[in-house]
Amino acid sequence: MDALRPRQKLWIERNGRLALSTYRVDLLERVAEHGSLAQAADALGLSYRRAWGKVKELEANLGIPLVRSEVGGAGGGHTTLTPEATAFLEAYRAYESRMQEHLATEFEALFASVVAARTRS
Amino acid sequence: MDALRPRQKLWIERNGRLALSTYRVDLLERVAEHGSLAQAADALGLSYRRAWGKVKELEANLGIPLVRSEVGGAGGGHTTLTPEATAFLEAYRAYESRMQEHLATEFEALFASVVAARTRS
Repeated sequence: MDALRPRQKLWIERNGRLALSTYRVDLLERVAEHGSLAQAADALGLSYRRAWGKVKELEANLGIPLVRSEVGGAGGGHTTLTPEATAFLEAYRAYESRMQEHLATEFEALFASVVAARTRS
Repeated sequence: MDALRPRQKLWIERNGRLALSTYRVDLLERVAEHGSLAQAADALGLSYRRAWGKVKELEANLGIPLVRSEVGGAGGGHTTLTPEATAFLEAYRAYESRMQEHLATEFEALFASVVAARTRS
């Protein structure tokens, strides 16, 4: 429809504080993928300290543990997501996907006639 | 559902540039309300220059005239919205309202079980 594109940003708050967002979900998914917060931070161009801060902030704001770290061992440290974190991430991606569909559908439904009128004029 | 609250920010782009947003819609609605860009700017705590810049930027990015100004006359200058602007604002508010409903419905549907599990643990 013309060159107009609907955009949205989604996030979740708890008691007025950021509890989850697409960017934070990206970070946590990288942790799951790499088994390492350091590598997840690298992948997003964040310092380890900053990534760690973001995860701890989310844990405090969501009120649940999101990551588990095992220090040392044969391969060095290892960080995994908790089952609660995995459940939240899955719900978030499904939610985001449904909202993206609604965005396209509602935009088309509500702006099509306006844009057509504009193009004719 | 717990204290978690879904949030969203909506906007529209054209050729990668901001063409409409909730904040811009607020500004244009104030213009319609007051019949004056200066008063609309005041109501939002913006300088006239800044408000004027925002309107002109939107006109360029949307590709349509949004306001009409009449200089002078008995009561001084007067600014009104064009019919195209009014049509866009109406579509935007309807769109925003539908998206807000979807936000609540999808959040409830997708996060209810996750939050319940968290609360039990």
